[in-house]
This record gives sequence, structure tokens and C-alpha cells, in this order.
Amino acid sequence: MHDREVVFHLFYRKNPFDGHYAVAAGLALVIDYLKNLRFSVQDIQYLGSLKGADNKALFDESFLNYLQRMEFSCDIDAVEEGQIVGAHQPLVRVKGPWLQAQLIETALLNLINFSTLIATKAARITQAAEGDTVLEFGMRRAQGIDGSITATRSAYIGGCHGTSNVMAGRLYGIPIKGTHAHSWVMGFDSEIEAFKSYAEALPNNCIFLVDTYDTIQGVKNAIKLGAQLRSTGHEMIGIRLDSGDLAALSQKTRKLLNATGFKKAVIVASNDLDEYKVRELKAQGAQIDVWGIGTRLATAYDQAALGGVYKLSAIKDRRGSWQYKIKLSEEMIKISNPGILQTRRFYDEENIPVGDMIVNMAEGTQKASLIDQNTNKVINFEGKASELLLKPVFRQGKQVYESPAIADIRAFSLDRQRAFSNIDWDHYPSGLQEELFATKKSLIEQNRTE
Amino acid sequence: MHDREVVFHLFYRKNPFDGHYAVAAGLALVIDYLKNLRFSVQDIQYLGSLKGADNKALFDESFLNYLQRMEFSCDIDAVEEGQIVGAHQPLVRVKGPWLQAQLIETALLNLINFSTLIATKAARITQAAEGDTVLEFGMRRAQGIDGSITATRSAYIGGCHGTSNVMAGRLYGIPIKGTHAHSWVMGFDSEIEAFKSYAEALPNNCIFLVDTYDTIQGVKNAIKLGAQLRSTGHEMIGIRLDSGDLAALSQKTRKLLNATGFKKAVIVASNDLDEYKVRELKAQGAQIDVWGIGTRLATAYDQAALGGVYKLSAIKDRRGSWQYKIKLSEEMIKISNPGILQTRRFYDEENIPVGDMIVNMAEGTQKASLIDQNTNKVINFEGKASELLLKPVFRQGKQVYESPAIADIRAFSLDRQRAFSNIDWDHYPSGLQEELFATKKSLIEQNRTE
Repeated sequence: MHDREVVFHLFYRKNPFDGHYAVAAGLALVIDYLKNLRFSVQDIQYLGSLKGADNKALFDESFLNYLQRMEFSCDIDAVEEGQIVGAHQPLVRVKGPWLQAQLIETALLNLINFSTLIATKAARITQAAEGDTVLEFGMRRAQGIDGSITATRSAYIGGCHGTSNVMAGRLYGIPIKGTHAHSWVMGFDSEIEAFKSYAEALPNNCIFLVDTYDTIQGVKNAIKLGAQLRSTGHEMIGIRLDSGDLAALSQKTRKLLNATGFKKAVIVASNDLDEYKVRELKAQGAQIDVWGIGTRLATAYDQAALGGVYKLSAIKDRRGSWQYKIKLSEEMIKISNPGILQTRRFYDEENIPVGDMIVNMAEGTQKASLIDQNTNKVINFEGKASELLLKPVFRQGKQVYESPAIADIRAFSLDRQRAFSNIDWDHYPSGLQEELFATKKSLIEQNRTE
Repeated sequence: MHDREVVFHLFYRKNPFDGHYAVAAGLALVIDYLKNLRFSVQDIQYLGSLKGADNKALFDESFLNYLQRMEFSCDIDAVEEGQIVGAHQPLVRVKGPWLQAQLIETALLNLINFSTLIATKAARITQAAEGDTVLEFGMRRAQGIDGSITATRSAYIGGCHGTSNVMAGRLYGIPIKGTHAHSWVMGFDSEIEAFKSYAEALPNNCIFLVDTYDTIQGVKNAIKLGAQLRSTGHEMIGIRLDSGDLAALSQKTRKLLNATGFKKAVIVASNDLDEYKVRELKAQGAQIDVWGIGTRLATAYDQAALGGVYKLSAIKDRRGSWQYKIKLSEEMIKISNPGILQTRRFYDEENIPVGDMIVNMAEGTQKASLIDQNTNKVINFEGKASELLLKPVFRQGKQVYESPAIADIRAFSLDRQRAFSNIDWDHYPSGLQEELFATKKSLIEQNRTE
């Protein structure tokens, strides 16, 4: 059976954070993984050493030999990083020998689930910040070193402007930004001495963290140093608040800065922020220019996992024709879609998305009627401009797609977020192509009867 | 200032998951990180390329040269992996040149926070399982590849019995366990055919996943295959439930298995489980022998980050004497402890812990009176057996501690969990040594006056 051709799709069933969409991410990591997919001698030795319940070898020689000689030969199609996607739409399609397509399941889920989760969280936070600068500050509490580096990459794709994660800066060319620590202030006899010493060492990077002892006194000390810096031809970038009532403190700080000739000095704020707190602070009239977002972004604290799944949807029978497959469930939302799937997105004359249709490639992508999943009504997009969201990434194991530079991925993501920014989600049509809807229905009936 | 000797402590302020303690983990990863701590040519080039606000180099040559030549020379003391720790107790103490001690802050926090979080979650889940086998199944939704591998390692330390993460099995020698996927069943024309084919391929590893179409029919099919296996000298290990009402389904399954001569076949259950659901299912009389715990363990879903911090507590002045430091805050819980800290744990005659005291090494570890943080009462442990929890790990940058084998770490953790299993937490004394309490109080007053 291991060489039977199959099709799997990676998708999720519910948009994260009770939102309307996700920002796809992680494809570059998937490409890197698949390009390097092979079993080392140590891997094979380890697998060969595993024992079953009877204390005899778990895997036989022929299987281990297959793994050692395996050359990845699947076709992979995937949604571009930064693209807007919805529940049930395929994010990745894998077509190839069953054994290989099955083998990569867990790695693909791990890479796409996490990256997409964080890119989506970052999009929500940068949207809440309404154009203000948003910096990702989460490494210290991220889930492991790679949990942090991948979180930073995904946060940048989602819309963040920079990060305090210097390693991610080096690896991915993401702008890095940061301030000194509280410990810098604590190590000196006084706060003003600490600021002075910092200004001498890094005169072109002065954002003073002012809340080690007393925030407003800290702001006054920063202003003193700002004046000294200016007299030596440098300009204080700003101050950072990291505790207390950020709305009130930022207003007081803004007034003090403006009154002393530092109208351009920025106010950076941090302290367990997320999109909800950003909105709340803005509603309270906070005077914050730069938002430092840590734990709640890097771990997607309020929903720490995207529930992506990887489901078999077709297998070739012995005569070479596709048999469509679904996984049944009591819950309608958990029944998977059969076929070789693709998403066709329709646009109006101004290039604004007007509907998403999941199609079975074998039934043709051109028929433009879908059954809306909310209303069960038929909606026809005949004549509308459209785009297929899955793009070829591997063909027979060979890479045929190059990931764009990360800045271009981010620009694409922001452009797509803008395109979807005024959508009336209650009336955005989304569902299966009529033919696929019928195929699925008959497969459910057939399976239930059996 | 960069060579001034300082002391930092890594600790957290609130026990995770509203629990009474955490299970310390991550030290082996810290050791690995510090042993390999150096800047590559590429690192230095990258740092040299960074620009400040005036578009001139951010860092000067002498700093970059320092980094390139830096040899790690700190003293590190840390709590052993698997040990039980509480809020405010130092998990790691770093003593050495200020620049170095500051440089490693973020990596140490990242490694200790995540590992300790997951080890603690695993301890809670295995305790809820009351001796049943608990397997970690979380890779597909873990936060990145390392997020998964480190989660698996930590989950094993916390008490899990095995994992489905084969890479963690290979890297750390953790027992690996798993079942086939739903897709295995979907790929065949019928469930029974799929089970038959699996049993032929892996006769000594048969745990049949029975809920692809209809769970009870799946159990009956598994029993048929179990009988066939037995006739060829093999024994079915069990079945796995992955959806539906696990309490009711497991009871029906147990009856069917017992009635057909499979009393020893185990029932594995999974589906978004955690310690709360395990307790609930047990209360409902679920007949589950093996718990597969995925997302909610590997991401610590209900609290996805441990809030560990890293605070300066002492710095040597120019005359070579220690100056103690605290970080002030409106909130008493956020005021850090000054000095060179250690935790002394007291035991009764049966080796049961009876109290934890944080001491300042410079004030002596032998005085046995603490101020209990809950009651503010003085409690004297004079004459009790005791242990210092921080152990030497590095001395002047040289490693002086070898991490035990992971199975030994796990055994130590389980032993410590048992020692704390009958503690009356409302009356467990914990707090600062009297002298340290007085020192802290006078430092707060002094800082507030200034």
C-alpha cells in the first residue's frame, strides 16, 4: 500500500481568537524541512532498536531500508505566507505516495499551526494599534528558543515592525529594537547616573526605561539627559513605561516631554499587553507611540494553539482512479471535505474579495456557484475575477517555488489585511462549489449506510 | 562598569496553574547553552552592522571586540531538575561580571520558564491520573519544533511515561508510544481491512484506533483482529478512543473486551484532555488505562507561560563590598529580595519537608528562623535536618555539575512529588530568614526615602 497515491489537506476548522480569518504562515519552514527530509544512519539505528510488546524488533528491515533510501517525491501546493485564509480552506495540499504523505503529517502541522497562530495574533494586535509601531518583546517567556525565533518571524509577517530578539534579527533580517533593563538602573547609585552612563555608551539609541523607582521622577531624569544629549548633537529617542496605569502615565509623560521641547520623543509602553489592552488604552486616551508586546503575542496566550488538522481526502484505487474519502463525525464541522481541493477567491472590480469557494480540482475549478456555509444559499460568481489560493511548491519532490524575502511577505500580508479590512463578515459568501457539495453529501450518505 | 561583580536571581512570583509549587526543569538546556556561549564572526559582523537613530554604528569596536573575545566566567548555582520549588525562591543564581550576567538573561529565562512550566503541567496531569499511564501526544500543535521537543523532555521529567514524539525519543531516550492514524483506516475499503493490514505489518504493536466511523463497531472489529492475532501467537495491546463521550464509551468498550477474553487489553483515550478532564472522567467512572495528552500539555494551554523574572540583587562597590539591591514596586509581591540568595529546606524525622526559608548567604545560612509570608509569624527550625536547594553548576565559567540521566531526573521528580503529596499547604511555612527580612525592610525604607 505504501506507494498508493493519496491526497492529504492541512486545514483548520475554526478561525483563531474568535476572529474572521487567519494569516497563513510557516511555508518557508515547511520548504526547509522537506528539502532536507532524509533519515540519518543514527535515525535508522534508533528506529531499528525499538521493540514491540513481545520485546522483538518493532520495524522490519525492508521498512528501515525504504526509509534510508527514501527520496521525497510528493507534490505540495500551499497558500502563500501572508495570505488571508478561512476555516476549512486547504492551507497545504500533499499529493504523493501514501507512506511519504503520512510521514510528514506531524512536522507540517507543527510548523504551519504555530506560525499561522502567531502571524494572526500579530495582525490582530497591529490592527488594534491603528498604525502605531508594534514591537515583539516575547522571547523571555516564549515556548523554547525556536518557539521564540519562529514567533518573531511570524509576528513580523503578521505586521509587527520589529523585535527585541537579536537572533531573529540576524537570521531573518527583521529590524531589532529595544531598551535597557531595570537592572541597568539598579546597578548605579542613582537613576540619573544610570541614564547618564547609558547615554555616554549609546548616544544614538536612548530610550530611557523610567519606572524602576518612581515613573514621573524617571521621566524628569530622562528629560535632563535628553537636554544634555541635545547639547552634544544627539537626540533622545524617547522613554519607556513598563508598569502602572499606562493611560494616565503616558498622558502625564507626553505633557512633560512637550513642555520641555521633546515633542518628537516617543513613548514606548509594555506590560502584558495584547490587542484587547491596546484598544482599551487607546479608548482611555493613552499617549503611546510604540507598543512592546511580549508574552501574549509570542505564546498567543489566550489561545496557545491553532487546531489545524491533516486529513486524507482521496486515494487512487488499483485501476488508477481517485476514490474520495471523508472522515465522519457526529459534528458536521468535523466532517472533512473529499477530493483534490483548491480555494478559488473571487474579487470585484476594485479588487476587493467578494467570496471564497472550495472546489474539487477533479470537478473543475471554473464553475462559479458555491453553497454558502452560513445560509445554505447558492451564490453565483460567474464572470468575476478570481484567483486560486494554493500555489505549486513542490512537484515530484522538487522545489518549484521560492519564498519571497521576509519584508515582501510582510508587505503582502499587510496588503491582504487591507483588502479584507472593510468586509462585512456576516455576509461574506464562503463554502463548497455546488458539485463538491453534492459529492460530499452523497459520500456522507454512502458511509452512513455502510 | 562591565566587569563589576553582580548577582542576579531567576525566580517566579506566583505558582503556575493556581497550584502550590512548580517542578523545576530546563537546567540541562541552560548548561548546554552556557558551555557553547560564544559569538561567531557572523554574529559580530551582524552586531557591527546595526545602526542607531543617527544612522551611525550602534556599537563601538571595543564592545564588539569584548564580545568576540569573551570567555564566560560566571558562577552559576541552580536548583536540580525535578526539584519542587515555590514562588520567590531562586531557581538559578548568577554571580559574575555584570556584562556577562546581563547577557545571558533572556536565554536563561526562555529555557527555564518553558521547561518548568511544562514539567509542572505534566506533574499535575500524572497526579490526576493516579498511577495510570500518561503519554505526551502534543507535537502537532506545540509551539515550533523545539517547542515540541523541549515540551516532551519536560513532560517526561514531570512524570509522563512516554511520548509519540519519535525525535525526542531518539534525542533523550524517552520511551515512545503511539497508534495508527484515522487516515490509515480511511485509506482502506473498510475498517476491518485496515486493522487487518496493520496487524500484519506490526503484530506486536496493535492498538486499534476505533472511532473513524462508528466507535462501538470499531471496538468489535478490533476484537475480531485481536482473536486472529492471538491465533498467530500475538496479543493485541488495546484500543484507542479519540472522540465522543469517553466515560460512556470506555465503559462499554471495557465490557466488550472483558466479555471476549481481552481483560488485559488496555483502553487508551485522547481528545483535548488535561488534569481537569482526567479528574472529571475518573469521577464519571471512565475505564481508561492510558491517557494521551496533547495540546493542553505541550503548550500548557490554560497558562501558556511561566512568569519567571531575572533580577539584580547585589553589586560590588569600588571598595569590594556587596551593595544589596531591590526593585521597588507598588505591589509588595513585585519587590525583589536583596543579597546572594539560597533556599534552605527543612525536613522532619521522616524526611517530609516542613518549611522553606530564603536566606542571604552573606548573613549566614545556619540561623533557622523565618518570617512566614502568609502569617508574618516567626517560625524556628533550629535542630531540624535541612538542605540547600541551589547546587553549584558553574564556577568561574567552568562546569562543575553533570546533569543526571533523564530517567534519574524523572525518578527524582516523582520522589519529590511524593514527599510533598500530603502537605497542608495552608500551613506550610515559607518565607525569608529573619535577618534577610530585616535587611529587605530597611532597603525598602531607604529607597522610598530617597
